[in-house]
Amino acid sequence: MKHLPNPTHHKKIVVIGGGTGSFTVLQGLKSLTPDITALVTMADDGGSTGVLRDELGVLPPGDIRQCLVALSRSEKIRDVFNYRFESGTLKGHSFGNLFLTALEKLNGNFAEAVKTASEILNVQGRVMPITLDNVRLVYEDATGRQTRGEHKIDTMRFTPDSGQARIYLEPSASINPEALQAIKDANYIVIAPGDIYTSIGPLLVVDGVTESLQSCKAKIIYICNLVVKPGQTTGMDVSAHAAEIERLAGAPILDYVLYNNTKPVTTLLEKYVKKEEYPVDFNKKQLRRATYHAIGWSFISKEDVKSLAHDPLVHHRSLIRHDTTAIKRAVKRIMYSPIMLTKLK
Amino acid sequence: MKHLPNPTHHKKIVVIGGGTGSFTVLQGLKSLTPDITALVTMADDGGSTGVLRDELGVLPPGDIRQCLVALSRSEKIRDVFNYRFESGTLKGHSFGNLFLTALEKLNGNFAEAVKTASEILNVQGRVMPITLDNVRLVYEDATGRQTRGEHKIDTMRFTPDSGQARIYLEPSASINPEALQAIKDANYIVIAPGDIYTSIGPLLVVDGVTESLQSCKAKIIYICNLVVKPGQTTGMDVSAHAAEIERLAGAPILDYVLYNNTKPVTTLLEKYVKKEEYPVDFNKKQLRRATYHAIGWSFISKEDVKSLAHDPLVHHRSLIRHDTTAIKRAVKRIMYSPIMLTKLK
Repeated sequence: MKHLPNPTHHKKIVVIGGGTGSFTVLQGLKSLTPDITALVTMADDGGSTGVLRDELGVLPPGDIRQCLVALSRSEKIRDVFNYRFESGTLKGHSFGNLFLTALEKLNGNFAEAVKTASEILNVQGRVMPITLDNVRLVYEDATGRQTRGEHKIDTMRFTPDSGQARIYLEPSASINPEALQAIKDANYIVIAPGDIYTSIGPLLVVDGVTESLQSCKAKIIYICNLVVKPGQTTGMDVSAHAAEIERLAGAPILDYVLYNNTKPVTTLLEKYVKKEEYPVDFNKKQLRRATYHAIGWSFISKEDVKSLAHDPLVHHRSLIRHDTTAIKRAVKRIMYSPIMLTKLK
Repeated sequence: MKHLPNPTHHKKIVVIGGGTGSFTVLQGLKSLTPDITALVTMADDGGSTGVLRDELGVLPPGDIRQCLVALSRSEKIRDVFNYRFESGTLKGHSFGNLFLTALEKLNGNFAEAVKTASEILNVQGRVMPITLDNVRLVYEDATGRQTRGEHKIDTMRFTPDSGQARIYLEPSASINPEALQAIKDANYIVIAPGDIYTSIGPLLVVDGVTESLQSCKAKIIYICNLVVKPGQTTGMDVSAHAAEIERLAGAPILDYVLYNNTKPVTTLLEKYVKKEEYPVDFNKKQLRRATYHAIGWSFISKEDVKSLAHDPLVHHRSLIRHDTTAIKRAVKRIMYSPIMLTKLK
């Protein structure tokens, strides 16, 4: 059999982020190109992932698992990968986490484990940890007070100190060489929605990531969060979210910012106002002056909330979430009709 | 695409037994026919399997797992299926057991779980639990004293009371209808080597098994154990093993008995004499008078014992084991040259 070269019209898309956000974006974009790569944050230390890290010394499998499921073509194994044990000593462990952990222990190498899991799950594209170093996240506020551990930081309340808070990894981590190559080769890089200080940020502060994002040829698209994270990004609008991403990246790296310009239905909104999960606001005038193209879109999923109740991915997560088809259409517009977009601004 | 009928020369082989014994036999016989079915004993309640049964109320996955691995065509997933966690709360659990448990909880049905696992493992042939009832094994000696639980019985010492000991299941179990059909359709049924009272016996006492073995058209071949089980079958020779199998089956069901007629190397033998695992003896004169054809063969694996040390399947098991190629050759001889066999007797 002759090996045919990849058709040249296949654009290379890289999605960077954490579990749930990347899951949604990958679901949306995987039909746009066969050449899709998920680069995954590696600072998680809570829940099932935290127990496995503590007890077995492995790298965090949780975010990787969700990206593998998003790109898997095999429905049966997707389901079992997301299954969470409900009682006994296994309680709370997601099966996919145990799978990745067993593979890592067997291979002695997390990157290889992810590749093997990708084969077994019949994954379209590639899933890669952003770093192979075993690290812990540190948050340092403007007064120099430090908090250690992703899970701890995730659950604390703070004000971002108008650009003086720092996050970094302990020990310092360097970018996975394959992830670096994927960034270099990419035509589009999509930063998935996600917690700024515990999901996207920890990925950006891996040594080599911001440098490669600054120098790569790809158009960089940030898909802004739909709701604020209570006590962390409360009060931050779309511009502020984008500014914080660029501050953590050390440079104005964004070419496009996709934000939601519609309101969630009142019933849903009321629920989330109770949880202080206010929708991320936007100021059109300010966005027009930005260094990036800001594109408003109707992004809120209309999927029945009840139907999501059994989805392990939305367990303890916001039920206001991005519509995968809207993400696909918006990114497709950027890819194929960039001129029209200027009118949308 | 046209569906071609199975070539008529494909003989249907059914292997009945437990984990390690069936594993070896399946490995040996899978190249003889694409139509191979493993019917698996379901009384195990020790180790990882016991914990999963206790904590999650599932059917025992351990023996099924080993049969799936034996018939899997996918080397990578075979390895991870056999991986055993070495520390933390997961310590001792084999990954394959967790896989089957997650699938059963997800499907609500163990038979379906085994089918899904078979697909994912790319299994040649079929693996089926002998029963889908959740049962406990009971051993009752000649005095009427009962011991409950397979693991407990497995580790106790007793004398088989010259044919008066009983084993049964609580509650009574009925044969899996698909297993019944496999027995009806089989051309050859191979009873794998295995512990008589805790592996083969618990399978034979499932309601419907002995009746179907008595009435089926298949030739039934028993591959006798190589060594005795200390304190259970100590002193029992090949004839006595076969007689006990037929007693538990309620009728003289055996057409062939394959036994080992060579000695293990002295160094290995010394090790096992220390553990009271004496080789199963045989009396040619007595075997010639049997209702079955008894065939002596050189069955002992010459595989380096050291190379097996990392094989999780031989963990805490006898290191004297059957050579898979010898099993294949012996069964092939029965299938294709039955006339020559009379000379071997």
